[in-house]
Amino acid sequence: MSAPAVPTVDPVALRRALGTFTTGVTVVTARDPDGREAGVTANSFSSVSLDPPLVLWSLNRRSASLPVFAASSHFAVHILAYDQEALSNRFARPATDKFASLDVKRGAGGAPLLDKVSALFQCRLAYQYDGGDHVILVGEIEDFLATGRPPLVFHGGAYALAARKDAVPPPHDIPLAPDFLGYLIGRCHYQFYGRLQPRLAAMGLSMEDHFIVSALGVAGPLAPADLAAAISYTGIDLSPDRLSAMAESKVLDRDCNGRIGLSPRGRQMFIAAMAAAKDVEQDVLADFAPDEAHLLTQMLSRLVARTDPGLPDLWTQG
Amino acid sequence: MSAPAVPTVDPVALRRALGTFTTGVTVVTARDPDGREAGVTANSFSSVSLDPPLVLWSLNRRSASLPVFAASSHFAVHILAYDQEALSNRFARPATDKFASLDVKRGAGGAPLLDKVSALFQCRLAYQYDGGDHVILVGEIEDFLATGRPPLVFHGGAYALAARKDAVPPPHDIPLAPDFLGYLIGRCHYQFYGRLQPRLAAMGLSMEDHFIVSALGVAGPLAPADLAAAISYTGIDLSPDRLSAMAESKVLDRDCNGRIGLSPRGRQMFIAAMAAAKDVEQDVLADFAPDEAHLLTQMLSRLVARTDPGLPDLWTQG
Repeated sequence: MSAPAVPTVDPVALRRALGTFTTGVTVVTARDPDGREAGVTANSFSSVSLDPPLVLWSLNRRSASLPVFAASSHFAVHILAYDQEALSNRFARPATDKFASLDVKRGAGGAPLLDKVSALFQCRLAYQYDGGDHVILVGEIEDFLATGRPPLVFHGGAYALAARKDAVPPPHDIPLAPDFLGYLIGRCHYQFYGRLQPRLAAMGLSMEDHFIVSALGVAGPLAPADLAAAISYTGIDLSPDRLSAMAESKVLDRDCNGRIGLSPRGRQMFIAAMAAAKDVEQDVLADFAPDEAHLLTQMLSRLVARTDPGLPDLWTQG
Repeated sequence: MSAPAVPTVDPVALRRALGTFTTGVTVVTARDPDGREAGVTANSFSSVSLDPPLVLWSLNRRSASLPVFAASSHFAVHILAYDQEALSNRFARPATDKFASLDVKRGAGGAPLLDKVSALFQCRLAYQYDGGDHVILVGEIEDFLATGRPPLVFHGGAYALAARKDAVPPPHDIPLAPDFLGYLIGRCHYQFYGRLQPRLAAMGLSMEDHFIVSALGVAGPLAPADLAAAISYTGIDLSPDRLSAMAESKVLDRDCNGRIGLSPRGRQMFIAAMAAAKDVEQDVLADFAPDEAHLLTQMLSRLVARTDPGLPDLWTQG
């Protein structure tokens, strides 16, 4: 028995290590002279050359789509946008009718073109290079388009979003606190409500009233105990006095089952308060790209789920 | 005058469109038989084949490093970790002494190996393919390593971090609210402090006392007006009565200039409260990867800066 001449590599560990390289997600399409169409999801895309403008991607030799790509004069690379996971999944699986019900246009060489992507590169197939169990397809860009839609990201084996790093220096007055999550969250909260509060006050709503109105506006009429549970996380005291005062100012109603709900006036306040909060939000998020804003709300939702006192077991077993 | 035969492409717009494709960041190194070393930052890396295990990247034909890579039997690809921007910048610029003061090990073919990366692939140079103004270098992986350190990301022309998308369903009781940033921030705040509050209470600190102690612990002794300014964003009333009560319980001291500071007991409380907050934070962030946690604090810092009432002009002119 002799040692193997070629070093062996554990394919599962290798695949995971290669997955450390974060990428965008593309769908590449083509149509061959016989009218056969192909579309595959690929994250092996890379930019090669500016003059001439070349890009490449790799396709498995065993892919049923390879004969179509090899016979087509052109291919189209679509960089998917952050909300196009479904399209990525559709083209990642073998199927005969990947384009079914999709509204495609026709590009160079008849390649199907997808809509609402981040960017599109229409390429003439320039070279096919040997790449082991894959073929490296190099295309010369003949036309391209960038829509400004933020891109989808593939990161650590899962769909992800990216946000720029270290873009804003922390305010000068918090030398230590940026390292303290609780401080940052608290400060965000107080400063956000500091902007909203004058608009709520103009409607006659205190902060506490606003929480109660919001809970009822979202959930509908609630038994007093359920209302108390819905806002318990705020620590707001739901005393009979407060509820009476709100009923007297015609914000709340009680129905025949004793449930507390919003009066018509309360409902108007709820809608106006939501609009004011969205207005503040829009201003606050002005320097966040749409995918960054989405990512921020995702992460805050994770924090909410993680800290929810009602779900301690579920989230500590993760 | 006839139309140009070849379509022309605006290189600036093309570069921006190609930048839509998010990537990781690699540094590729080699050492040629004459002992010359090269190292370049590249984001054109891609995985090609599993059997045989192949990867590729592209290098500008005009790069001073090309002769070294072309003459070397091996190259080493390092996928940089999220805290290795400095390394990326170092190898992105032309320089003769890129490895100065770096503690490198030696890999296959003598290639310099960098430390604390996310992943490392040691490759034998297998093919050099024509790629327009670049050369496509294909390597066969002979050895690799993944450290588990989260990777750095390049996104929209800037360093970025990525976090997984849609990973956690929002809690069942907030059907509408995930779309409301102010609600999410508020709920995070109350729930975070809900976890911290029992530990503060055990030290005899109310929430309001805690803010005062924290501000003084971070900033040192302050004149009463400066202390009031430092916590003004919370809306906490800094009445003489509250300060007297805290002084009586031996948390605060007044120095000869009338500035308010922490007593020795107050300083102990400050340290204990910081430790408790870090403890809660660690638990709350248990399902966040280190780069995700860093990204979250970055985004919250941006929100703090954006909503800081002291900086309205600076941040609205963005």
